[in-house]
Amino acid sequence: MWSQQRIQLPAMERGFHLITDRVVEALPDLARCRVGMLHLQLLHTSASLTLNENADPDVRHDMDAFLRRLVPGDLPYFRHTLEGPDDMPAHVIASLLGTQLTLAVHDGRLALGTWQGIWLGEHRNHGGPRRLIATLNGEE
Amino acid sequence: MWSQQRIQLPAMERGFHLITDRVVEALPDLARCRVGMLHLQLLHTSASLTLNENADPDVRHDMDAFLRRLVPGDLPYFRHTLEGPDDMPAHVIASLLGTQLTLAVHDGRLALGTWQGIWLGEHRNHGGPRRLIATLNGEE
Amino acid sequence: MWSQQRIQLPAMERGFHLITDRVVEALPDLARCRVGMLHLQLLHTSASLTLNENADPDVRHDMDAFLRRLVPGDLPYFRHTLEGPDDMPAHVIASLLGTQLTLAVHDGRLALGTWQGIWLGEHRNHGGPRRLIATLNGEE
Repeated sequence: MWSQQRIQLPAMERGFHLITDRVVEALPDLARCRVGMLHLQLLHTSASLTLNENADPDVRHDMDAFLRRLVPGDLPYFRHTLEGPDDMPAHVIASLLGTQLTLAVHDGRLALGTWQGIWLGEHRNHGGPRRLIATLNGEE
Repeated sequence: MWSQQRIQLPAMERGFHLITDRVVEALPDLARCRVGMLHLQLLHTSASLTLNENADPDVRHDMDAFLRRLVPGDLPYFRHTLEGPDDMPAHVIASLLGTQLTLAVHDGRLALGTWQGIWLGEHRNHGGPRRLIATLNGEE
Repeated sequence: MWSQQRIQLPAMERGFHLITDRVVEALPDLARCRVGMLHLQLLHTSASLTLNENADPDVRHDMDAFLRRLVPGDLPYFRHTLEGPDDMPAHVIASLLGTQLTLAVHDGRLALGTWQGIWLGEHRNHGGPRRLIATLNGEE
């Protein structure tokens, strides 16, 4: 079985957000898939998708705090500065973390570890709504 | 053809470990797959999977040495510190390198380049055994 | 439908290069695929594949400028130095950005966002031609 659909996420503030439930709710066909893969791809270049801890919000805080310091906005050699000091760091972080993710599906559910969740990384100050395309392939 | 199974890796010490042979040995169905994709997903958030050099162990040493300095454990703004100074860096590195990997399959084998191997990154001091889920999809 | 083929890219200079058109031109079967996934895997460990901005070349410049400073070649603890000071940084960046990418396919085309393009990161001074393996799986 193949199933593909677009998911729109509302505007979120800069930082990391747990979106596992939103993604699963948008994909009713997941329940029919016994074994498969779910591919998620953000359609943007200044936000990211990653798998990380689904419990303590401090992990999301610390990840963002680390990355803001790793890629500051005022590096003197940056040329792509027209859209503001949060833009080029957002592009860098999008490539460091990635904008697409493939996840195992087992018995109608995402086969995530106990502590794993899907994170959206919003790396712009005002990124607006974000779209992603979800492609499910599997065996019923 | 679809095939899915869990693979358990024994506890390994902090650093990077070549696991290509372990993965291939755990997947007898791979030999029947003419063209396909193998998806590997760690079920943890403080270890990583990456493709890198399969020969000189110094590459694995240097990667670990670099990442330990890039993400130190004693950053004053880290809040998620209850599990020790190796925990939050492990979460950061897991997202920088990723915890899932999709690999091309050709003629019953992983279609890796001559120098490519699958690395497990263990980023905790005492991470214990690590589980991954392998999903193979292809044409016989 | 399954389709797999090797693509050879000519030698490119150190930095990031937009390769979306080259990849699409090498894959005539893409046009027949209504819904699917395209998997791209570099067969090298010192170059990278990432999705990022397809318009302003300054974004590619800034990404490279940032990564050169993030991973300098003369770190005193590097042991893998025999192939020159550009080699170990290239291995590190290959793992930070990744060497494989899965992309959604919709109506015979890559389902990329308006501003998304496929980048090849060449991280060696003289990397030579680079090969990748493209695996397409989908529904006609």
